[in-house]
Amino acid sequence: MNPIALTMGDPAGIGGELSLRAWLAKAPCFAVLDDPERLRELARALRLDVPIVEIAELASASTAFPKALPVLPIRLPVPVQPGRPDPANAPAIIASIERATRFAQAGEASGVVTNPISKAALYRAGFAYPGHTEFLAALTGATGRQVMMLASPVLRVVPVTVHASLLASIQMLSTEMIVAVSRTADAAMRDEFGLARPRLAIAGLNPHAGEQGALGDEETTIISPAIAVLRAEGIDVSGPWPPDTMFTEAARARYDVAICMYHDQALIPLKTLDMRHGVNVTLGLPIIRTSPDHGTAFDIAGQGIADPASLLAALRLAADLAARRNPAVSPAPPPGR
Amino acid sequence: MNPIALTMGDPAGIGGELSLRAWLAKAPCFAVLDDPERLRELARALRLDVPIVEIAELASASTAFPKALPVLPIRLPVPVQPGRPDPANAPAIIASIERATRFAQAGEASGVVTNPISKAALYRAGFAYPGHTEFLAALTGATGRQVMMLASPVLRVVPVTVHASLLASIQMLSTEMIVAVSRTADAAMRDEFGLARPRLAIAGLNPHAGEQGALGDEETTIISPAIAVLRAEGIDVSGPWPPDTMFTEAARARYDVAICMYHDQALIPLKTLDMRHGVNVTLGLPIIRTSPDHGTAFDIAGQGIADPASLLAALRLAADLAARRNPAVSPAPPPGR
Repeated sequence: MNPIALTMGDPAGIGGELSLRAWLAKAPCFAVLDDPERLRELARALRLDVPIVEIAELASASTAFPKALPVLPIRLPVPVQPGRPDPANAPAIIASIERATRFAQAGEASGVVTNPISKAALYRAGFAYPGHTEFLAALTGATGRQVMMLASPVLRVVPVTVHASLLASIQMLSTEMIVAVSRTADAAMRDEFGLARPRLAIAGLNPHAGEQGALGDEETTIISPAIAVLRAEGIDVSGPWPPDTMFTEAARARYDVAICMYHDQALIPLKTLDMRHGVNVTLGLPIIRTSPDHGTAFDIAGQGIADPASLLAALRLAADLAARRNPAVSPAPPPGR
Repeated sequence: MNPIALTMGDPAGIGGELSLRAWLAKAPCFAVLDDPERLRELARALRLDVPIVEIAELASASTAFPKALPVLPIRLPVPVQPGRPDPANAPAIIASIERATRFAQAGEASGVVTNPISKAALYRAGFAYPGHTEFLAALTGATGRQVMMLASPVLRVVPVTVHASLLASIQMLSTEMIVAVSRTADAAMRDEFGLARPRLAIAGLNPHAGEQGALGDEETTIISPAIAVLRAEGIDVSGPWPPDTMFTEAARARYDVAICMYHDQALIPLKTLDMRHGVNVTLGLPIIRTSPDHGTAFDIAGQGIADPASLLAALRLAADLAARRNPAVSPAPPPGR
């Protein structure tokens, strides 16, 4: 299998030390697109025994990886101060994402894993996308709707509304959004995750899923109609479920992915159940893309205390998804479950 | 310690079988205010080896309890059909709550535990209260604000808004409500739970607690002002916390009770972490009152499959709280933690 391309992320954040630790923790083969000298210094400062090897081509990563962390060099014009993002480094951060994406599109990388960026720092340098996902969609010319899924070993969730206030999330919620997001999730569960007939559990919005309208009518007017549309398309959907009881162990056994109406309805159960191993997966892109479920953590950057568990899980999931795409490496999963 | 008074709840629900099972599971000493004949029949039908003893006075319960389930008789005028609530039995259901409350007020019962009722069935019989809590407040002449707390072995949560749609919950949220609910929670944690200096964690409303206003301004305009008021009163409050990361194990170690902005923000983590042992505690009443964290479950009533874990936890918590009130039984907790 080809190596995974790991982006630099904001070098003032915890991405660099996580990349070093992921190599130490025997992640699946990856190369990082970063400044080799700054990684060498970081390893020295944190006393991490990670040999760095510069590679000129991604193809060299597989041979190099067992003995050293392969780095495709992207030089930073300004020395990195942990915790202090510098807009002067923004072009390098963006170039790292662009090059990783090109490798994945060309099939040289089996997927892209992105270290966290600081949007505020990139905006100041003229970056015009709301975040990684939109940038990757533009780079790959993706059509359709991209969807964020959070996956941990015990739960997969897809929020229908994401980065908006809770009030705005309720106001923007629509049958069309739920249908579009669920379609993307269903297709990705089949095509990327190898589930023959994925089971989608659609959450209610209100307490007790509205209690027959006594506690809100969005279940009746917005969510149930979406379920009817999806069911008519042959998608295995259930719901709307009372949000407070749909994440118990017994309930989770009855679905493969929970479609959630707002950010915290998805993220509270995911992080409460497993804070460390959550992975962000972008569904609906022509390339495989995962990322750790945390930010740049400027407040602890450079101290050597950042936990690499989520980045490691992101690298492993990207490798798993790539193996499924490539039947020479791993047989296709059996039909049914 | 005096026995706990356990109410009948709706006899068409799972309350009766849970009462029988709680006795079998060696709950702390309690008497149930119910129809002894119907409980005898239920025990026979479900093959539960629970001797029933009618008692004329609550004081007899302590002697009787080791050998039989003590029942203070309240005859039901209509035979019970599991799953089919009958308004004709409503006066008996209400009388059970009234008598249990009187026992607790008189000090004869150490507390009241309520089996689930069906509000719809009681409304049809003229019951004029939104639920148990308001009825108990009226019966005891309680002043101030009653507050629902959900407690499990790993988490305590208090929702500021409860039985309203998510949209209405956001619209009704106010600084005054957060302050009033937090005051009641703080006082109860001190007086009932014996914590010298309870730590209250106040949740944000929006994703990432609003991200400095980018994802909603209720943190700035409503929640932070409440925190300032509470802090000025000497209450140990922190927040507003990002809702998705405040229920992890590490975060939970930093507070005694989470004050949540809406029903599911409180109930999702509580039930996801421990579906079976959640207990509802009414704070701000002059008597101790707990209840299981589930409803009448008409759909499974009479089948013998209902799980008594939550009722058992409710009986145990009521006994614990009563013991704390009575230093002869249990010494007051040491100051500080």
